[in-house]
Amino acid sequence: MLQKLTPEARTAKLAQLPGWNEVAGRDAIRKDFVFADFNQAFGFMTRIALKADKMDHHPEWFNVYNQVHITLSTHDCGGLSERDITLATFIESVAAESRAK
Amino acid sequence: MLQKLTPEARTAKLAQLPGWNEVAGRDAIRKDFVFADFNQAFGFMTRIALKADKMDHHPEWFNVYNQVHITLSTHDCGGLSERDITLATFIESVAAESRAK
Repeated sequence: MLQKLTPEARTAKLAQLPGWNEVAGRDAIRKDFVFADFNQAFGFMTRIALKADKMDHHPEWFNVYNQVHITLSTHDCGGLSERDITLATFIESVAAESRAK
Repeated sequence: MLQKLTPEARTAKLAQLPGWNEVAGRDAIRKDFVFADFNQAFGFMTRIALKADKMDHHPEWFNVYNQVHITLSTHDCGGLSERDITLATFIESVAAESRAK
């Protein structure tokens, strides 16, 4: 069973993830990304999809053209867990590489 | 410039696309799909992404685990065009194949 992060751990972890904000009315975090075009946005999503399926921890996400909005939460614990932090950290690394091109 | 479908054409085309409904307050159509798991859902999305980018006509879509919600509209004409019908028809063919497995 995954443990829900303590408020202290959550604050400390989110401080390391710029742009990830708590979602009003939900125990979840969200960040919106903008890319050059659809190809770059969907390439970003595909790298995350492969990682997410391997982790068995899936995002809630919305895409239109070059925009990708990602919400992370852990259903099993009804809140944020270490898995959300791991996935958000991975997403940041992919975003940084995608934008660097 | 893409032509917006006439009300008559729109009604006739939508009758050929079961499950695609008009979106309240917007000139757009939407359908929600449910698959066996994330792998099948994202495989479906990937096939649509390749087609959409080739058509230069992109969906608005939301995914969480095995669910995919797709909204189609043509920004250039501020409503529904033949391109939305073409993409919806393609999406139906991919969904039928995905579920057949």
